[in-house]
Amino acid sequence: MDLLQRFLKGEKPAIARVITQIENGTDPKLLEEIFPHTGKAYYIGITGPPGAGKSSLVNAIVPKLLENNQKVGIIAVDPTSPFSGGALLGDRIRMNDLALNENVFIRSMATRGSLGGLASKTKDVALVLDAAGFDYVLIETVGVGQVELDIAQVCDTTVVVLVPESGDAIQAMKAGILEVADILIVNKGDRTGADRLVLELKFAFELREQTIGWDVPIIKTVAIENQGIDELVSNIRSQKKYLESSGKLEEERKNKLAVRIHELIEEKIKAHLHDYVIDKAKLEEMINKAYNRKITPHLISDEITKKIF
Amino acid sequence: MDLLQRFLKGEKPAIARVITQIENGTDPKLLEEIFPHTGKAYYIGITGPPGAGKSSLVNAIVPKLLENNQKVGIIAVDPTSPFSGGALLGDRIRMNDLALNENVFIRSMATRGSLGGLASKTKDVALVLDAAGFDYVLIETVGVGQVELDIAQVCDTTVVVLVPESGDAIQAMKAGILEVADILIVNKGDRTGADRLVLELKFAFELREQTIGWDVPIIKTVAIENQGIDELVSNIRSQKKYLESSGKLEEERKNKLAVRIHELIEEKIKAHLHDYVIDKAKLEEMINKAYNRKITPHLISDEITKKIF
Repeated sequence: MDLLQRFLKGEKPAIARVITQIENGTDPKLLEEIFPHTGKAYYIGITGPPGAGKSSLVNAIVPKLLENNQKVGIIAVDPTSPFSGGALLGDRIRMNDLALNENVFIRSMATRGSLGGLASKTKDVALVLDAAGFDYVLIETVGVGQVELDIAQVCDTTVVVLVPESGDAIQAMKAGILEVADILIVNKGDRTGADRLVLELKFAFELREQTIGWDVPIIKTVAIENQGIDELVSNIRSQKKYLESSGKLEEERKNKLAVRIHELIEEKIKAHLHDYVIDKAKLEEMINKAYNRKITPHLISDEITKKIF
Repeated sequence: MDLLQRFLKGEKPAIARVITQIENGTDPKLLEEIFPHTGKAYYIGITGPPGAGKSSLVNAIVPKLLENNQKVGIIAVDPTSPFSGGALLGDRIRMNDLALNENVFIRSMATRGSLGGLASKTKDVALVLDAAGFDYVLIETVGVGQVELDIAQVCDTTVVVLVPESGDAIQAMKAGILEVADILIVNKGDRTGADRLVLELKFAFELREQTIGWDVPIIKTVAIENQGIDELVSNIRSQKKYLESSGKLEEERKNKLAVRIHELIEEKIKAHLHDYVIDKAKLEEMINKAYNRKITPHLISDEITKKIF
């Protein structure tokens, strides 16, 4: 039986091999072959600052998502996550229990010293898990950088996790993470400051609720004690139902496909530019001019862009 | 006297106005006018995780950089920095002392809810401070995301600040920040774990020193007590001298100009794509096909890219 057949049967070693091939880009046809089998999974993003307890949340919600014989694929793009080999021993033990479940598949995405292309690769790996028959694809990312915003862009539901200690987080959120949150979690909710953070977030969200048509729930959890997890999972389910019944799931997925196509075009153009579009000798001459302050990089880029189109 | 003249005389209100106009893009000619006056400043980047004490370091090193009648311009891209209005009262008071110095100019860059374009704008604002006659341009950024890597790319010397507590930082560094460090600081060096972190970093750097031709110094500081600051500033100065005398400064600045030109081309192409290159009706048809799993976003982007070139 060939790799693709074993993959479509959901055999874990075959899934792992297909992911590796997609990551390495060794077989460009492979994605074409699996793509017709995608579109069935529901994509959930879990993001937040380091130490917010994202992995504990994943550990707590996955057993609930598995109910009724559902399958869950997990991608960890978080270098501090136990799923990626980081974090504490206790977390890793709980994670191992999860990994042994036959309906769970865990994959960590290595950053390999560079952020470039990471979000894009992650999206392709999510497609692989989708094609492999997982009902839910969970993507855990850390931080509030561009990679997280890009990945959130591919998720049907994005859960942003904060903790009372993350005063910085409130600041960081200004950098865009609030914009992508469908559900907001205040984890370690038994600590001082949790209620205040919930109130602050409620206030921040009231100001924008009118515009998005979906009330962003703000839920207090204590993930390691399973508190608030039922509420979180039921909110994920009700958002899923809302999106499906209102036709918004189709609409949003089409929007996301449009963004993805633009992204891929930009990647390809970038590669083209570096490869052969720009006349190297001419460019060097222009760089020398810019170095001597005769022409701005902006004007040079204008000229080149005009030539391309 | 017109704005440009007052700007070139170094009048602070004129500098502030030029920056605002560059940020808003209201006068495309303005950058052309100031560009011939750039190229004289030395660019220093200060980056690291939230709470590493980057602002305290800036507060400590600026007085030394000001010696011999030098002028220092500071750009804070860090939402947790007192220079941007974040952080603690004590920090803000020290920062205010600095701001009152006639040879210092401080500007914070608002993230305005989006990271897109922030690094690019920051580079243009750095050019403005360069043209205004500042001998040093200091850029303070937070974190280890793409924005920081992009900004480091424009700095002659990049200082990466860590603290003993930032165990996460070691993980995060794998995402590329080690690659851009010219000088590495272990701040709050009087705390437990500082020496161990220094050793770990020394080990990590030994592995790559052969390749870069410059020994990355790893310096322990206690910024709020001025410890280690002389060593840091003298290392910045000796790297500056090394770059200047070896001809590497010119070489690296030309490389950076090349990268900047590529970046600007990519920005422009992005804008073009969204504006009018893609036939909207045709794109919508293709998105529908992708939604129905008839064609991958990858193949669609291939087709469009081929049409452009």
